[in-house]
Amino acid sequence: MIVERGSIGFDSITLDNGSTLAPVEVAYQSYGRLNAAKSNAILIEHAFSGDAHAAGVDADTGKPGWWDSMIGPGKGFDTDRYFVVCTNVLGGCRGTTGPSSIDPATGCPYALKFPVITIGDMVRLQRMAIDWFGIPRLLAVTGGSMGGMQALEWAVAYPDRVVSAIPIASTTRHSAQQIAFNEVGRQAIMFDSHFNNGDYYGKQPPAGGLSVARMVGHITYMSDRSMGEKFGRRLRQKDDLSYSFGVDFEVESYLRYRGGQFVNRFDANSYLYITKAMDYFDLTQGRGTLEETLARTQACFQVISFSSDWLYPSYQSQEMVRALEAVGRDVSYTEVQSDYGHDSFLLDVGGQPDVVREFLSRMEDVANGRSMAHLGGDYRMACE
Amino acid sequence: MIVERGSIGFDSITLDNGSTLAPVEVAYQSYGRLNAAKSNAILIEHAFSGDAHAAGVDADTGKPGWWDSMIGPGKGFDTDRYFVVCTNVLGGCRGTTGPSSIDPATGCPYALKFPVITIGDMVRLQRMAIDWFGIPRLLAVTGGSMGGMQALEWAVAYPDRVVSAIPIASTTRHSAQQIAFNEVGRQAIMFDSHFNNGDYYGKQPPAGGLSVARMVGHITYMSDRSMGEKFGRRLRQKDDLSYSFGVDFEVESYLRYRGGQFVNRFDANSYLYITKAMDYFDLTQGRGTLEETLARTQACFQVISFSSDWLYPSYQSQEMVRALEAVGRDVSYTEVQSDYGHDSFLLDVGGQPDVVREFLSRMEDVANGRSMAHLGGDYRMACE
Repeated sequence: MIVERGSIGFDSITLDNGSTLAPVEVAYQSYGRLNAAKSNAILIEHAFSGDAHAAGVDADTGKPGWWDSMIGPGKGFDTDRYFVVCTNVLGGCRGTTGPSSIDPATGCPYALKFPVITIGDMVRLQRMAIDWFGIPRLLAVTGGSMGGMQALEWAVAYPDRVVSAIPIASTTRHSAQQIAFNEVGRQAIMFDSHFNNGDYYGKQPPAGGLSVARMVGHITYMSDRSMGEKFGRRLRQKDDLSYSFGVDFEVESYLRYRGGQFVNRFDANSYLYITKAMDYFDLTQGRGTLEETLARTQACFQVISFSSDWLYPSYQSQEMVRALEAVGRDVSYTEVQSDYGHDSFLLDVGGQPDVVREFLSRMEDVANGRSMAHLGGDYRMACE
Repeated sequence: MIVERGSIGFDSITLDNGSTLAPVEVAYQSYGRLNAAKSNAILIEHAFSGDAHAAGVDADTGKPGWWDSMIGPGKGFDTDRYFVVCTNVLGGCRGTTGPSSIDPATGCPYALKFPVITIGDMVRLQRMAIDWFGIPRLLAVTGGSMGGMQALEWAVAYPDRVVSAIPIASTTRHSAQQIAFNEVGRQAIMFDSHFNNGDYYGKQPPAGGLSVARMVGHITYMSDRSMGEKFGRRLRQKDDLSYSFGVDFEVESYLRYRGGQFVNRFDANSYLYITKAMDYFDLTQGRGTLEETLARTQACFQVISFSSDWLYPSYQSQEMVRALEAVGRDVSYTEVQSDYGHDSFLLDVGGQPDVVREFLSRMEDVANGRSMAHLGGDYRMACE
């Protein structure tokens, strides 16, 4: 698999809040080869804590990419056929400009002077990157969770630039419960005495708060059943309760470990900015009803949800599928049976790779105008 | 309604961890009148953050008791018929001995020198209080959530002391997910720089950590649907997003408010001790299988769960019902249809008062040996 790692610099980007951010840098990785017609490009969009390292093994850390189960030769996103690109999101802390980047006005990290960004801003920057690659139209935009929000935003904001969108385990707008879990994480960080109103760079970071925020996240990513099967009430040490506030149960040990680990790779301010972007996300904002919003799209859709995902429950995906059907879009929907909760989208479960592979194969035909016979007139226009 | 508020002192109590706590005080409230035969007493057991003030209006604060919808003249627990008692749990911070109580050995609050306690210890202390009242057998022991755990423990540990048990929205053992949510709350408190290993009395308490812990709790007490209906994506201020980290959404405002309020009435160390007791709770520990454990009981059971409760899901209640049936116990089960999640048990929804009223009426007959004709021989012995 041909892997390229790089970063693209732009003079500036205009944001949804009306401000301009300048300059701006986008970190990316790509896998496979762009064909001569530049028609085989797929944009992968990462979830909240992801980064551009979606596939392959990182030479420095030895770690596989976050979606390595799905991206590679012969995999769901087959790098022998497709040119797969993944960029770190705006506001992130893994190469793309974010609150830990240097503010040229001060020579210090932006911290909370960084503007509050939106999913629309993230996607606008991705479009600039795709322009830079010279790709006229993406064969697919896809991602899970927050990645799915970006895929939907792409299809609505830049309808002539995407043949298809594959939103996975996602939603058209954050619900009260989804906002609530994010707000808990933000409050945990902001209550940390080391937070210092975001100015902690070069000092001790708000590690405790960030760790607690991540622990909450991990619970919501799993299902009651998968936690029961993975940990149950298994004790960490021997057969005895400690009668102390140390670790008794395996599940406590797991959460503490994952929380602590996260602190080493993620910036607390990025946690604030990216969760806020998710909470602000409402695909319909300024665009009318959900149907009116989705009527702007020209893409074909493959929507995927997971039966045990209670953070982004199937009913949210089904709502978008019904609205897409109502406006005559070519939409396929798969609810994958899986016990692994929201994390399912990261795993090779329930035939997700096959669903994607078959959909993409059809999208090649759609892009080449070879196969729309099964679709009605209006719709054919849209997807051809 | 006759209301009595008081507190009972005991020389000492022996705990499950092998230690002795001395002295020990129990705060209680009672409603209604104990009859001459002392056969009309019902023990109400509160949930995690509750206290002895279960019913009526507090003269000082003007606040109704936490189960005022269920306890009073003509209500589910009818104080015209029954003598209803509620005690604050061991380890609490509302009158009963807990980590904020003075350790006679030092003259200072126990803080983390307080022994780690169990649901069994809480129930042992309640039994001492019931002995003090001179009540030979409780007509019913009941409570929701952690209160239900205590009701189950009563029925197993002191089978000849309870005619019936009504565990509501509860479980026979904490699951990995339930432990996980509690552990997040504990970590939020313990990471707070004001926690100071529990020695914060007379100083600034770990308010931020306790507030975050409570926010997590509130999310788990509601359902996705009830949060959607109560808050949705409604904004706090006008129609505009703030593009800041202040409060945008009503749900954020609600959580911050409830978190902040909790700090004024609850002790962070009690949070640690009581959640740990819940996590340690496994009714079967040292007692064999669930069936073997429940075969020790002599009570009749009314089990109640709520359809939208995802913190203590119905399947956990159904598991105990099946086990009770397997060992031939008189068990009724009601799954109340309600959208309010775990909080449902505190509310007057879905006929919960009627279910309780009818069950208690039958229990009076059972206690008086008037009505067991519908039951088999062995079982009649148990419930008569």
